[in-house]
Amino acid sequence: MLKKPIIYLISDSLGETAEKVIQASLSQFVNGQEYEIVRTPYVEDTTKLKQVLTNATRDKAIVGYTLVNPELRQYVKQKSVLLNLESIDIIGPMLEAMERIFEKKPRMKPGLAHQLDEAYFKRVEAIEFAVQYDDGRDPRGIEQADIILVGVSRTSKTPLSQYLALKSLKVANVPIVPEVDPPEELYRVDPSKCIGLKINPEKLNDIRRERLKALGLKENANYATHRRIEQELAFFECVVNKLACPVIDVSNKAVEETANLIMQIKMSQ
Amino acid sequence: MLKKPIIYLISDSLGETAEKVIQASLSQFVNGQEYEIVRTPYVEDTTKLKQVLTNATRDKAIVGYTLVNPELRQYVKQKSVLLNLESIDIIGPMLEAMERIFEKKPRMKPGLAHQLDEAYFKRVEAIEFAVQYDDGRDPRGIEQADIILVGVSRTSKTPLSQYLALKSLKVANVPIVPEVDPPEELYRVDPSKCIGLKINPEKLNDIRRERLKALGLKENANYATHRRIEQELAFFECVVNKLACPVIDVSNKAVEETANLIMQIKMSQ
Repeated sequence: MLKKPIIYLISDSLGETAEKVIQASLSQFVNGQEYEIVRTPYVEDTTKLKQVLTNATRDKAIVGYTLVNPELRQYVKQKSVLLNLESIDIIGPMLEAMERIFEKKPRMKPGLAHQLDEAYFKRVEAIEFAVQYDDGRDPRGIEQADIILVGVSRTSKTPLSQYLALKSLKVANVPIVPEVDPPEELYRVDPSKCIGLKINPEKLNDIRRERLKALGLKENANYATHRRIEQELAFFECVVNKLACPVIDVSNKAVEETANLIMQIKMSQ
Repeated sequence: MLKKPIIYLISDSLGETAEKVIQASLSQFVNGQEYEIVRTPYVEDTTKLKQVLTNATRDKAIVGYTLVNPELRQYVKQKSVLLNLESIDIIGPMLEAMERIFEKKPRMKPGLAHQLDEAYFKRVEAIEFAVQYDDGRDPRGIEQADIILVGVSRTSKTPLSQYLALKSLKVANVPIVPEVDPPEELYRVDPSKCIGLKINPEKLNDIRRERLKALGLKENANYATHRRIEQELAFFECVVNKLACPVIDVSNKAVEETANLIMQIKMSQ
C-alpha cells in the first residue's frame, strides 16, 4: 500500500453512529496499521457537503455518512457518482425501512438520539449511581440497585458497572475481601439482583501483577501471590454460595461481553 | 397502525453496532410509541440465520444485520428476496469499501471490536480513573489526568467524565464550592488541560430543584436558591478566570454533545 487509507465521516449530528460502524469495520482490517479518520459533524447543507466530498475525492478517501434528511442523502449519492467517490449511506436504508413499518415519515431532525428526554436522564442517573456506589462505598446503594456485582479485586466490577449504566441500569458493586464480611444489606436483597464475577486464579494473578507494575509497586506483593488469590477466591465462593446468585466467569471476557451476558440473565428472569 | 413494529437485530458478535444504528434510526420515528427489538447475537451459521429470518418474516418485521462473513451476508440477501423480507446490511457496504482502500481481505473474525488489546485496557483504565478521581476525591488525580473538569454541583461533571473515558481519556473532576478553595494542584497543571463547565442560573436552579425532589428533600433548600446559585457561579467565574482555561456552556447540552466539544478543543490544541 502506497498511502495511508483515509475514511471521511460526515454526520448531521455528532457522528457517533457513523463512528461505531467505521470502528467496527476497521477492527476487521487494522492491526496497528495506520489510517486516518476525518470527521465532519453537524453538516446540514449542500454547500458544506460539496466541500467535504471534494476534499474526500482529493484524498482518495471513502466516505461514511449519517444524514436524516433524504434530500441530503440523495445529494451525496449523486455527487459521489459524479466525483467517482465511494460513499456509504450508514443510516438511510434503515430509516427508509422504518418509514414503511412505522407507516409515517421520519421526524428528520438531526441529533434526536441526544435529546434531553426521560431516557437520557435515566442514563445519566445510572452513571452517577454507579460512581456513587462503586466499590461498596455506601451499602445503601445495594438496596436501590437493579444489579449488584460481587467479586474480588480486579474482576472488572467498576467498568462493568459503567457499561451497564449506559444501558440505564443502576449498578452497585461490592468487593469481596476475606478479612471483611460483606455488608448485611447484600444478604437482604433479592438474590436474583446479585451477580457473582468469578475468574480463574492464573488469569487473576496475571492481571494483578500487571496492575502492580502499572502502579510502580513490587510484583511479588501479597496481592498477587497464589496463596492470597486462592484464599480470596475461596471466600468469594462462600459468599456467592450463600447468596445463591448467578455467577459469570469473566476470565477471558471483554467488559462488553460480560455486560451482555448480564443483560441476558436479567431479561430471562 | 394495526400492530407494533418489530425490528430484528442479527449479529455475529454482541450486536452493539447494529443496536446503535437501530436506536439512532428509531429516534427519528418513536415518541413514546411502542415497538419491539428482537436481538439474536452470536449468529455464525446459515441454520441459525434461516430460523431467525423465518421468524422475522412471520412477524412482518424488518431486519438489521452485522455479519463480517460475506457468505453469510449473501445468504441473508438471497433468503430475504425469497421470503419477501426487508433486511438491511449495516456493516457490509463499509467492509467492502474498506477492502478496496486497505487493499486486503478483512480478517472475518466476529467480535474483533471487543478484543482484549491495548486499546481495550486503556479504555478500562480510563473508566476506573474517572471513578477514582470523581468529585475531587483525591487531588493527585489532577496531575495524572488528560482533562480536568471544573464546575459547580449539577453541571454533568460525573457523566461527562465517563463519556470521555469511553474515548480513552483520563478525566478528573473538581467541584467548585465557595466555602472551599480548589486544591492547589489545579493551579499547577497546564491550564489547557482544564475545562470549565458553566451553566445559566435558571437552568441550574431547575436541575437542582428536580434533584432535591428526586432525593425526597424540600425544594427550597439553600442548594436551590437563586442567591446561593449566583454565589456559586460567581466563585466559579473567579476560579476559571484565574485558571484562564476554556469554558463550555452546558446549559442545554446533552453530555455527548459537551464531550464532543471537549474532544474538538483537545484536538485543536
